[in-house]
Amino acid sequence: MSNPTAAMLVIGDEILSGRTKDTNTNYLAKALTEAGITLTEARVVSDDQGAIVAAVNALRAAYDWVFTSGGIGPTHDDITADAIAAAFGVHIDVRDDARALLAAHYAARGMEFNTARQRMARIPDGATLIDNPVSIAPGFTLGNVHVMAGVPSVFEAMVASVLPHLTGGPPLMSQTLRMMRGEGDIAASLGAVAAEFPDLSIGSYPFQSNGAYGTNIVVRGTDGAQIDAAMVRLNKDLSA
Amino acid sequence: MSNPTAAMLVIGDEILSGRTKDTNTNYLAKALTEAGITLTEARVVSDDQGAIVAAVNALRAAYDWVFTSGGIGPTHDDITADAIAAAFGVHIDVRDDARALLAAHYAARGMEFNTARQRMARIPDGATLIDNPVSIAPGFTLGNVHVMAGVPSVFEAMVASVLPHLTGGPPLMSQTLRMMRGEGDIAASLGAVAAEFPDLSIGSYPFQSNGAYGTNIVVRGTDGAQIDAAMVRLNKDLSA
Repeated sequence: MSNPTAAMLVIGDEILSGRTKDTNTNYLAKALTEAGITLTEARVVSDDQGAIVAAVNALRAAYDWVFTSGGIGPTHDDITADAIAAAFGVHIDVRDDARALLAAHYAARGMEFNTARQRMARIPDGATLIDNPVSIAPGFTLGNVHVMAGVPSVFEAMVASVLPHLTGGPPLMSQTLRMMRGEGDIAASLGAVAAEFPDLSIGSYPFQSNGAYGTNIVVRGTDGAQIDAAMVRLNKDLSA
Repeated sequence: MSNPTAAMLVIGDEILSGRTKDTNTNYLAKALTEAGITLTEARVVSDDQGAIVAAVNALRAAYDWVFTSGGIGPTHDDITADAIAAAFGVHIDVRDDARALLAAHYAARGMEFNTARQRMARIPDGATLIDNPVSIAPGFTLGNVHVMAGVPSVFEAMVASVLPHLTGGPPLMSQTLRMMRGEGDIAASLGAVAAEFPDLSIGSYPFQSNGAYGTNIVVRGTDGAQIDAAMVRLNKDLSA
């Protein structure tokens, strides 16, 4: 399949300690699937500059787009913007356009625009700002890397700001066949159908219901007619 | 900190398409934190042999332990065991001990132990089996890599089988200070306390409650007295 590829990079000790559940990867995965972009890899790294730089450089070289989540707030452990600048080897400082957005926001609320909050206006040279309608502090796009907030409501708003500007392939479609047979009973038929339709991805996901084994078979691809044909074959082979 | 390090590798197209939410990483993260093992990185890759081999070899070289989740069932898309064997450059085939476990299980239920189900007895040379009290089909440990099922109930049972055999460091402890002040207000104090206690990890996590901004400050470390001292400092600095 020739759809564009993407990777997700989640940044944050709180995910790796188990304190916080990452929901951004699943949100992005669904949004990219609808947009015809294939999420091919996801990683979680800690709030460590070396780890962030190594992951960003590996992923931006391997995939068409990289999306990051987390580490762009005002506190000492928010080091993502500086790490992205280091990964690209570009200069970073408080930038006038981002500072103006934040200064107006805090002035309207009678809140101090102090040194910590000015950190959120640190933007690498050459980056484009990503609109944040929720809490103003912008994300940014540098090269093929989209740098976004970790708070889910802000992350999701930033995905909505970015996605319309990306060109996807044909959307990935799927059909699901649910049956009350165990995976081990249907594996041979599944394998044969998978071999017959090499352009489709055919996955099987076991479940238990009232003590009986069942399987959801999911057929994914970009060609609706092929998906239909595979579903007909599966229905015929597995209803025997 | 000198605690042992670990990585999680989730294998499965269904996670990357967004169809299924990965809950195993968060479960493992909490269990490792309690055991005094630091989860340092997590990755998700697709059901692709090249991607699995590359990730396993990168992670097992970088961390003390690697845990994998997914791809050890009976169907054509379950290729994890063969990919692990390829990553280590060892032979793999149906192994007698694993086959005996499964044969007895299916015989007791009057179910056919067919070719597909025998795939679940494919174990790389030199691996040790991981007990699966839920659905019998075993995981395995090869070198520093623990290969486990993707179904959460089975993954969790396998973690319980493996963890008591691993030597962790002192457990990571944490205390949380919740306050109704925005991150931007307290960032300077937080940074000062973080600099004063370099052996502790001090994270801040913003939230909104009834329209007001608040922050959870989480202090983590292995020295309880240091954590107490940092909490006293934070309380004093931030209640001013």
